[in-house]
Amino acid sequence: MAEFLFDFGSPNGYLAHRVIPQIEARTGEKFTYTPILLGGLFKLTNNQSPVMAYANIPNKLAYEMLELRRFVAKHGIAFQMNPFFPVNTLRLMRGAMAAALDGVLPQYVEAGFHHMWEAPKKMDDPAVWAEALTSSGLDAERLAARIGDDDVKAKLMANTEAAAKRGAFGIPTFFVGDEMYFGKDRLGDVEDAIVRQRGAGA
Amino acid sequence: MAEFLFDFGSPNGYLAHRVIPQIEARTGEKFTYTPILLGGLFKLTNNQSPVMAYANIPNKLAYEMLELRRFVAKHGIAFQMNPFFPVNTLRLMRGAMAAALDGVLPQYVEAGFHHMWEAPKKMDDPAVWAEALTSSGLDAERLAARIGDDDVKAKLMANTEAAAKRGAFGIPTFFVGDEMYFGKDRLGDVEDAIVRQRGAGA
Repeated sequence: MAEFLFDFGSPNGYLAHRVIPQIEARTGEKFTYTPILLGGLFKLTNNQSPVMAYANIPNKLAYEMLELRRFVAKHGIAFQMNPFFPVNTLRLMRGAMAAALDGVLPQYVEAGFHHMWEAPKKMDDPAVWAEALTSSGLDAERLAARIGDDDVKAKLMANTEAAAKRGAFGIPTFFVGDEMYFGKDRLGDVEDAIVRQRGAGA
Repeated sequence: MAEFLFDFGSPNGYLAHRVIPQIEARTGEKFTYTPILLGGLFKLTNNQSPVMAYANIPNKLAYEMLELRRFVAKHGIAFQMNPFFPVNTLRLMRGAMAAALDGVLPQYVEAGFHHMWEAPKKMDDPAVWAEALTSSGLDAERLAARIGDDDVKAKLMANTEAAAKRGAFGIPTFFVGDEMYFGKDRLGDVEDAIVRQRGAGA
């Protein structure tokens, strides 16, 4: 089983999302998307975003950006840096959790990544969020009502705490069975692990 | 042209060194090994070792170690963590610089990595260093005399300063022409870049 722990706030998460369908097509394995709250995971694991962690290491930050551009170019991905970065994703991710519980996660995932990294908007603004989701064909009114519900909030928190317990510390994180992989640059290893585990009949 | 900026103090540098011959065999490209002082590069770029940087992010440090074990297993590399880590590599790297200027760098590189990560020793101890090099067939007496020479010290410093200016911030760093790559996990990208540049007649 292949799993992708995601939060819309991570540009590298978006880039992974754009490559996953190719891996699914080659392997026949369908990824499970698990919404987590990246800010919460950072707090639980004492980690921080690369932009924060490397703010005072200019060469390292520049290299991170170079590898992002290389990945975008190599895979021919539409990508725009979000001018409002970092966007607080609490509302976005509670919406994803509600969408998951209500059976419309794939549509929500597409919309969330699109409005963050293809046609970037200030998605922590409730009005912007609602208008963007509506324009993508989602029922923003229902989702807006759902994101305050206890089951939604509790499940998102539980996913995040479970991620920390399983060893995660950032996005994108992948699990293939019990094997964890971190980073868009390890998608090749993720694919190898899928092929290996399917070959073993796992 | 493919170049490998190295310091014996980096376990990931050693692991890259063990895989480079396979890339050389497949591509026909011979890597140039450039000695730099990792501690100096860290100071110049405000960076630090993963062990220091992730000391308070246990999940991230554990994952780094997992990826090290995966790499060792995948490539069938003999590896032992050096029990004296972190070893101050000033003497080791001045020795490498002397060996480079005196035309015996390949032998010194093999010896240095061997005594750090295959049969690990406290290589910042001058007596241990001399005995280890001698056991590997090097002229330790001559190298010990050379490492205090101005040309050796100045060239190692110049290499390190040039590395920082070119954008490096850690080990292993690779250049293929002007393109920089960081980390053992990007050796596949390094190989692709070599093939691309040779194809373009560069």
